[in-house]
Amino acid sequence: MRARIFVRLKRGILDPQGVAVKRALEGLGYGEVRDLRVGKVLELELEPADPGQVRSRLEDMCRRLLANPVTEDFTVEIVDEGGRPRLP
Amino acid sequence: MRARIFVRLKRGILDPQGVAVKRALEGLGYGEVRDLRVGKVLELELEPADPGQVRSRLEDMCRRLLANPVTEDFTVEIVDEGGRPRLP
Repeated sequence: MRARIFVRLKRGILDPQGVAVKRALEGLGYGEVRDLRVGKVLELELEPADPGQVRSRLEDMCRRLLANPVTEDFTVEIVDEGGRPRLP
Repeated sequence: MRARIFVRLKRGILDPQGVAVKRALEGLGYGEVRDLRVGKVLELELEPADPGQVRSRLEDMCRRLLANPVTEDFTVEIVDEGGRPRLP
């Protein structure tokens, strides 16, 4: 079974990488970008199990290792084989 | 309008960050992780426009700046306000 974890900076926290990429895109003529933030995505292949239980284990992983609770938010998605999110 | 761009290493290319995170998770008791790869996600807020045209502009941005075509793949998703992907 497959899952995706998004780890991103919290809204109030400056994202210098996002600012730099936005500016570079503007320089290339992509002025339609109003805001851009860069985060991490972890794509996992997991032993099959109950989706509710998997989700709770993934949230634990985020709290214990994958995200910095002071500066970062995370989102967990269980996805189907085509990579589309399943509803919770 | 909102979009997400995923940039990840191509399948055949070693992802040392993913290997290190997988090992750390195993050490914490999360043995159910069979495979883990780390990529980037860019979350964009854009001027409203035709979704087909937006998608094509985003793919251009990836080819010109955001992804390294030798080592990386990318995926573009137009998302609704809740962050769920819209179908193409």
